Amino acid sequence: MQSESLALHTDKYQINMIYAHWVNGTHERKAVFEAYFRKLPFGNGYAVFAGLERIVQYISHLRFTDSEIEFLGRQEEKYDPAFLELLRNFRFKGNLLAVPEGTLVFPNEPLVRVDGTIMEAQLIETALLNFMNFQTLIATKASRVKRVAENEVLLEFGSRRAQEADAAIWGARAAYLSGFDATSNLLAGEIFGIPTKGTHSHSWVQSFNSEMEAFERFAKALPDQVSLLVDTFDTLNSGVPNAIKTARLLESKGKRLSSIRLDSGDLAYLSIQARKMLDEAGLPYVKIVASNDLDENTIFNLKAQGAKIDIWGVGTQLITAADQPALGGVYKLVEREYNGKMEPTIKISGNPEKVTTPGKKDILRIVDIESGKAIADYICFPHEQQARAGGKLRLFDPVHPYLKKSVKNYRAIEMLQPIYVNGELVYKLPSLHAIRKYHKEQLQMFWPEYLRKLNPEKYRVNLSQEAWELKQKLIEDYLGHQED
Amino acid sequence: MQSESLALHTDKYQINMIYAHWVNGTHERKAVFEAYFRKLPFGNGYAVFAGLERIVQYISHLRFTDSEIEFLGRQEEKYDPAFLELLRNFRFKGNLLAVPEGTLVFPNEPLVRVDGTIMEAQLIETALLNFMNFQTLIATKASRVKRVAENEVLLEFGSRRAQEADAAIWGARAAYLSGFDATSNLLAGEIFGIPTKGTHSHSWVQSFNSEMEAFERFAKALPDQVSLLVDTFDTLNSGVPNAIKTARLLESKGKRLSSIRLDSGDLAYLSIQARKMLDEAGLPYVKIVASNDLDENTIFNLKAQGAKIDIWGVGTQLITAADQPALGGVYKLVEREYNGKMEPTIKISGNPEKVTTPGKKDILRIVDIESGKAIADYICFPHEQQARAGGKLRLFDPVHPYLKKSVKNYRAIEMLQPIYVNGELVYKLPSLHAIRKYHKEQLQMFWPEYLRKLNPEKYRVNLSQEAWELKQKLIEDYLGHQED
Repeated sequence: MQSESLALHTDKYQINMIYAHWVNGTHERKAVFEAYFRKLPFGNGYAVFAGLERIVQYISHLRFTDSEIEFLGRQEEKYDPAFLELLRNFRFKGNLLAVPEGTLVFPNEPLVRVDGTIMEAQLIETALLNFMNFQTLIATKASRVKRVAENEVLLEFGSRRAQEADAAIWGARAAYLSGFDATSNLLAGEIFGIPTKGTHSHSWVQSFNSEMEAFERFAKALPDQVSLLVDTFDTLNSGVPNAIKTARLLESKGKRLSSIRLDSGDLAYLSIQARKMLDEAGLPYVKIVASNDLDENTIFNLKAQGAKIDIWGVGTQLITAADQPALGGVYKLVEREYNGKMEPTIKISGNPEKVTTPGKKDILRIVDIESGKAIADYICFPHEQQARAGGKLRLFDPVHPYLKKSVKNYRAIEMLQPIYVNGELVYKLPSLHAIRKYHKEQLQMFWPEYLRKLNPEKYRVNLSQEAWELKQKLIEDYLGHQED
Repeated sequence: MQSESLALHTDKYQINMIYAHWVNGTHERKAVFEAYFRKLPFGNGYAVFAGLERIVQYISHLRFTDSEIEFLGRQEEKYDPAFLELLRNFRFKGNLLAVPEGTLVFPNEPLVRVDGTIMEAQLIETALLNFMNFQTLIATKASRVKRVAENEVLLEFGSRRAQEADAAIWGARAAYLSGFDATSNLLAGEIFGIPTKGTHSHSWVQSFNSEMEAFERFAKALPDQVSLLVDTFDTLNSGVPNAIKTARLLESKGKRLSSIRLDSGDLAYLSIQARKMLDEAGLPYVKIVASNDLDENTIFNLKAQGAKIDIWGVGTQLITAADQPALGGVYKLVEREYNGKMEPTIKISGNPEKVTTPGKKDILRIVDIESGKAIADYICFPHEQQARAGGKLRLFDPVHPYLKKSVKNYRAIEMLQPIYVNGELVYKLPSLHAIRKYHKEQLQMFWPEYLRKLNPEKYRVNLSQEAWELKQKLIEDYLGHQED
């Protein structure tokens, strides 16, 4: 069984670097790291940040047990015992800021900013990225699905195909956060208070001598929650007619059949025919559930074909983010202490997109006061007052300078929230219900062109003049140094 | 934090079906379910079974806590309190057979067979598939990577991109099982005894004023484990020359530089040049590590280009099985108790590949005595003696009858091993070391044409005559019934 402590859920190189800093006496130097991703997943126009609750639970419980220290003592690196004592007494004492879960976020903006000793900032990198990358990925995928099914009910059904237990459970949470209505996973229901839903499988029908017997017995057992899977033998010739008979039996007892579920075949055709049959039988209230390898594209196409589906059960494609199963979130050093002072640092790369932006940065979301819609995200240093003061603001795209724009009459919303201050948790984790609501409000702050599934408009994320100039300066310093 | 108990890590419909059986008085009827997949992932010629250790831990600890029972009592289904008491006292008392971890397995053969009450067989489905699907998927992906790098060292580096913590940890185990040599994840190292490896990141170099200073300080701290990342600024003009200087410093203290790591750029060109520079500097012992979004295809191509790489660090592509992030393993009812007797059952589908094979089945691996190589897997009923007795065996492909073959002079190896008998664990879980060894032996039992990465030969999985005839009979019974 997975040990309860996640202190060792880290890459060994983090410990080796901390150790090497300790040997060199530099492990308590201050550093600032920022976590961000470079590219939106699925060709989407936005991502939905998630993972903060898990990160907070992890950091608040982060300490090494005796057996973990012993394990580290047995490594081929032969760490000095005094170093192991340092780890034994470790507590996170740094600062951490993050955007709230459910926030719409964009490439190259700091989603989590960690400001502490090199030791503590380095130690948490692996787990922080593991949680943020997965949960943000699934929340984003779920939000895409929700965009094509705004008025229907969405059920998360992926546990059997998820990448192990944590993925099933935290993935169900991420889906709910982005607008799903329920999950099939009871553990996710228990831990997070997500509504849970379930019907029956083909094996239920196979356990009896006829489909009709199976339906009757299911209806007898759960008369208030009857959803019948109608495709075990023949959807339109057997399943739906038997479901209609079951509905009549339920009506005779003052109950109602909740829904039928289609799990194979041409869901557009079958749902249209089933809807007709149900309506003609005077059962307009019986909902139609569809499942079977659905994602935002199949749902979009089924709806375009006139499918009559009220409830979508989405499994594998969502819970594994099948079309892009990893978000490439990274965690980069942007400031370091040197000779007792903090100084910005840059990582150069042959690939221009991988050059980091130096300095500790904030995100201001620039929102037009009149429309209430977001215009751009403005990345600037904490001391910069221009946007915060609300004066006329010049936005420019450094790569394509003609994409410049001046804005006034805006609000500048501070997106990074303090989570830990000197190791103390100062943030009250919102309820999942509140996160869902916040995510909905976030969506309303964006024009539809940024939210559409296919070829969305690119939302502006601009550096402040000062941040841009610092970056250019450090690049030039580096190049000058190279030419020496 | 994830609760320690995984009893609720199940789909609600399992509980609803168990409940409906209980209401109908049929929950203690016997049933046999088989878990299998229909299609090999990644176009591979085989899969590597994994997940059994996790399944055993899960089943052995499977009981509902008071708070879980209370949670179930609050559901909209309004389960009868007597049913909740039944759950409270639940223990798995059934039989479970499985192939050992590390076994080469193929489509449509039972990998896990559960034989117990409907209640217990149904309750474990979701978690069992969740574990088997993910771990088998990653073990298979890792085995593919190992096939293209038989003589090099393979490191699993995927934690930051894995789909949450369990995926990182159990995925590291699956990779090791299939021939990886170490993982970067310390928790996987602690829990499973997998060797752990780690070097340093770009941020280590950025923490100092020069690359040379960073290298020197790292070498001073960990003189016996020095691996230097050489691509922070300029691999061939700065990184490798500085690594060579560091190697000389180490030599002057009687130590040796272990390796350099390339993490960007053209790994073929850079590794060839770096190898030359190291050799010319009299450092033939310094290994070259490569990382950066590697998988079996990039490794294969880099090798074809003459890349001089001794150690491959494989991350995202492996740990998420990026080209196919889910194995579609299913769990199907094959026998049920009816009127006190067990009878085979079939699930018909419009899609012929989804028609189940009725009856409780074994797998016999037919191995040619002379060559020691596997000829076919033969799926038959437990009572069938023909193959077990070693007599002349007729293998036939029911879909393509001309693919028939007679074999003699073979051993028939029983692949399914008893794991639980009447709820008692009778299987001694092998060490991970033993599983690795067994996996290697398994590979040696197959001709190379089944093992190759691209367009592998299809390995025969054949039904016994009796199993095939039963399937045909049940299909005909069903069709006859349909025509009534």
